[in-house]
Amino acid sequence: MSKIISGFSKFSKDEKVDWLLKNYFTNSSEALKVIQQYWNDDEKLQQLHDDFIENTITNFYMPFGVAPNFVINNREYTIPMVLEESSVVAAASLVGKFWSTRGGFKTTVIGTTKIGQIHFMFAGKKEDLKSYFAENKTELFAATASITQNMEKRGGGILDIKLVDKTDKLANYYQLHITFETKDSMGANFINSCLEAIAKKFEKDDIEIVMSILSNYVPECLVRAEVSCKIEELGGENPQKFAEKFYQAVKIAEIEPYRAVTHNKGIMNGIDAVVLATGNDFRAIEAGAHAYASRSGTYTSLSHCTIHNGVFKFWIEIPLALGTVGGLTALHPMAKFSLELLQKPSARVLMQIIAAAGLAQNFAALRALTTKGIQHGHMKMHLQNILNQFDATVEEKEEITAYFDKRTVSHSAVVEKLKSLRKPKVKWVDFLDFDTIKYKLSTLSEDSKPVFGQMNAQQMIEHLSAVTQIANGNWNINVFVSDEKTARRKPFLQTENELQTGFRASFIADEPIKLKFSSIEIAIDDLLYQLQSFLLVFKRDKNRTVVHPFFGELNFEEWKKFQVKHFTHHFKQFDLL
Amino acid sequence: MSKIISGFSKFSKDEKVDWLLKNYFTNSSEALKVIQQYWNDDEKLQQLHDDFIENTITNFYMPFGVAPNFVINNREYTIPMVLEESSVVAAASLVGKFWSTRGGFKTTVIGTTKIGQIHFMFAGKKEDLKSYFAENKTELFAATASITQNMEKRGGGILDIKLVDKTDKLANYYQLHITFETKDSMGANFINSCLEAIAKKFEKDDIEIVMSILSNYVPECLVRAEVSCKIEELGGENPQKFAEKFYQAVKIAEIEPYRAVTHNKGIMNGIDAVVLATGNDFRAIEAGAHAYASRSGTYTSLSHCTIHNGVFKFWIEIPLALGTVGGLTALHPMAKFSLELLQKPSARVLMQIIAAAGLAQNFAALRALTTKGIQHGHMKMHLQNILNQFDATVEEKEEITAYFDKRTVSHSAVVEKLKSLRKPKVKWVDFLDFDTIKYKLSTLSEDSKPVFGQMNAQQMIEHLSAVTQIANGNWNINVFVSDEKTARRKPFLQTENELQTGFRASFIADEPIKLKFSSIEIAIDDLLYQLQSFLLVFKRDKNRTVVHPFFGELNFEEWKKFQVKHFTHHFKQFDLL
Repeated sequence: MSKIISGFSKFSKDEKVDWLLKNYFTNSSEALKVIQQYWNDDEKLQQLHDDFIENTITNFYMPFGVAPNFVINNREYTIPMVLEESSVVAAASLVGKFWSTRGGFKTTVIGTTKIGQIHFMFAGKKEDLKSYFAENKTELFAATASITQNMEKRGGGILDIKLVDKTDKLANYYQLHITFETKDSMGANFINSCLEAIAKKFEKDDIEIVMSILSNYVPECLVRAEVSCKIEELGGENPQKFAEKFYQAVKIAEIEPYRAVTHNKGIMNGIDAVVLATGNDFRAIEAGAHAYASRSGTYTSLSHCTIHNGVFKFWIEIPLALGTVGGLTALHPMAKFSLELLQKPSARVLMQIIAAAGLAQNFAALRALTTKGIQHGHMKMHLQNILNQFDATVEEKEEITAYFDKRTVSHSAVVEKLKSLRKPKVKWVDFLDFDTIKYKLSTLSEDSKPVFGQMNAQQMIEHLSAVTQIANGNWNINVFVSDEKTARRKPFLQTENELQTGFRASFIADEPIKLKFSSIEIAIDDLLYQLQSFLLVFKRDKNRTVVHPFFGELNFEEWKKFQVKHFTHHFKQFDLL
Repeated sequence: MSKIISGFSKFSKDEKVDWLLKNYFTNSSEALKVIQQYWNDDEKLQQLHDDFIENTITNFYMPFGVAPNFVINNREYTIPMVLEESSVVAAASLVGKFWSTRGGFKTTVIGTTKIGQIHFMFAGKKEDLKSYFAENKTELFAATASITQNMEKRGGGILDIKLVDKTDKLANYYQLHITFETKDSMGANFINSCLEAIAKKFEKDDIEIVMSILSNYVPECLVRAEVSCKIEELGGENPQKFAEKFYQAVKIAEIEPYRAVTHNKGIMNGIDAVVLATGNDFRAIEAGAHAYASRSGTYTSLSHCTIHNGVFKFWIEIPLALGTVGGLTALHPMAKFSLELLQKPSARVLMQIIAAAGLAQNFAALRALTTKGIQHGHMKMHLQNILNQFDATVEEKEEITAYFDKRTVSHSAVVEKLKSLRKPKVKWVDFLDFDTIKYKLSTLSEDSKPVFGQMNAQQMIEHLSAVTQIANGNWNINVFVSDEKTARRKPFLQTENELQTGFRASFIADEPIKLKFSSIEIAIDDLLYQLQSFLLVFKRDKNRTVVHPFFGELNFEEWKKFQVKHFTHHFKQFDLL
């Protein structure tokens, strides 16, 4: 069935959902439940959110968190943050608190100028264009009168209109480069409307307007945030060492683009969270910030650090074109809430708050990275997420959280640990308990069928014996095993994991193994003999190592670990556990 | 009251909300309602969302929309988009449909290599470091065995570890630059865990690890998406002209950073919307994309266009490090829903879908910009948002939407129109209806008190006469009024707005006006005489213009508009309407 559809946008919300479920979901009642569980009971409120964009079918929940204890220019703030990434709010809160007792954040707005451009083509004489522009400049301003009226009341408007010659880069290409002050509004609509009105006025037969559009590159809409204190006030075990390492980390971000990108990404974690919470446009902020980071020709850090005369100073300069009126700021009830929480800031104040949030995030990241590593804190949250994913019980959560307190969290390690809690424990075979080994194996006969694999019982017993003989040094096999491979494999012996069902080392021949002995009984005796020798040879030389054809060079302890796994594996094969 | 608080993170959600409301909100019951209206009724579901980050107090709704009709490598998709910006989903849908009948999107994954770095300081001999690295490389791989085990099963893992000398940029600074294949996971936790394990192994007395962290700059985790067709298949009135202008717009973005930043921002509107919907990390994607755009040393466009042999081709190359397993992808029910809607793509397929969404967005933006301008479509949505903000009724919405069909939308223009619909209409005074004028004015006496201002009745009548004499050319005033100012003021005459109460042109003297006539009756006769002259002088010379001391040079029509406003203003002053 073709999934191409006409008139979808005209469908009602229910019709849209219906069509989606029919076309893309096998269990459509389950999918419908997922969509509907996010609808708001208040129809009017839901309608408001549905109208923000097109073809809306439900709400995507982003967590709304808060970071208290920010002191910015001596005023206390609790900062709203909307973000899906764990640790960011926690880090902001900690750093806010940290600097609140060390003078807080000091911020300054360096500029608030915004930019729009009219891109056009003109093939005539440059002088003609220049005089046409000069003669009509006043008219160009006038063309926006009805649009700028309100903005001018608020002290904003068009600052200047310049003619820019770009013909050295592209034939016949010129711009009107226009600067704006948009006060408390981000100003995108205002700027674009002005540009289109100006372009309409400016256009003539020999001037072809290509496009008129604001620029998200706003290097003059710039804010600075800073923290500083005496090194000894930084606290911790060795504040001097901490400051130096922190400084190094910033230097590295200044000179190494691979690091700078991630360094700035961390800053943007803090920035975007507040941008989103206040109903601003994070794509615009991201584009402006990263372009600013690359302005020198080499992508570099947005933050900087100095240590002078025993004073640690850390600051950021970042372009932020923001609004506290217009757009979603008043429309989205939670954006409005955020602005109220921030004590109804002007756009200038919001620039400063957000710059502080970005700097705080960067401080947190660098502090973690240069001390205990980023993964420590990160993984705590990651662990909880994984546990939630697998619907872990409260008891499981407690046990596993304790288990990973000093261990490396990885998705697989957590899943494995959870599985091991949930599954019956492995009964390991004690291969040196000769009585039990003998008794168990003696229950086997020629008719015993394996649970997996091709061996019969006697072949399996002789195989255990043969592998033991390798350890004993009585059987020389010529199997190449590279250092690199064994280095990767060997750690497996230290785990609680079993050899996998169907595991078959590559050195085992494909053809059925020829029997060595005439009966199972004799094979068992031989195996027991080899096991006794195994103890003996390692008793004689405790530092002895023997190459295992799969795991490489193993000492006595490692061979024992292998034997336990290997015996368990084959006992399972014949259901002997 | 100090807003600095200890132990906030340990508070229950209710306690957190309580504290916020007490400290920051004057109407705390209203604010509580706002927070609570977004809580989900399903406590377990709400808990899941609360646990994603820290200090969560509620959910921030982002609209979840869908863009159908995407054909990517001959497969049909409906693309989930989460975004607060209007027009983006509508644009994606239109462009998806447009290209679905022109061969659809063709996409290729160029690479999937991810990067991590261990940054360290070493002051010794370079040769020593090199041999230490060479000798221990295998061990470094081995150090990650327990972490890489599962990833290797899926075909991923560490690709290579390289020692990089960066001492030319910063004294004693080296890196281990490590490449990874992380298959369907974004791999941030995996990479960071590997790096920390390797760093631990690599560290020694004379090697100081500064930090170990993945890079979000991933130029080798790259995808390409393309559309192309014969120019005549582009449709529209003049496909050749369209293609050429489109091509110009792309060229401009290639050479002009101010434009490139916004051009790419538009691409990211499409990219981020799908990144968010699928539970991926948009800060990582943004950082990687913009850094890639600046890699040549000049920030440039991520998309490109050619016209060769009558074929229009438009494509994008963008680094996208994405996951379809791990992180939020399975945890957030709507992220999971998105991936199911996309037919459970691998990370490679998701890269291609998202690149197509970005290219589509870029195509839509450039098409709009180079044809009717971006504001046309944008403003339609903007208009609806403003109307919602002011709780417009269905009737008001219809009337205002129709009104702005061919007019420039601005926030102030919409608000004004809405106000004008809601307020009683202005009763304009017909200043050329002499009988009514005479009758109304004759109701005034010396005792009549003005509603506003300082004039008495006769002063007001003589003032109307005096201003009319300016138009008639009988009264020469020497008032300088600059072209620029008048150009901005004059459009006001064309509006439906009244002169403001308290309006007082700067040329009006501050001292009380001396009366010219001995009674109100004579003053009224004089005014009527001047009004008759007004008609007469403009009848004699239709092209006549006279400078108005505030609005500048006005013709007959403009003077009449002024007079209506001026008479209405003063009639209101004496409650004559």
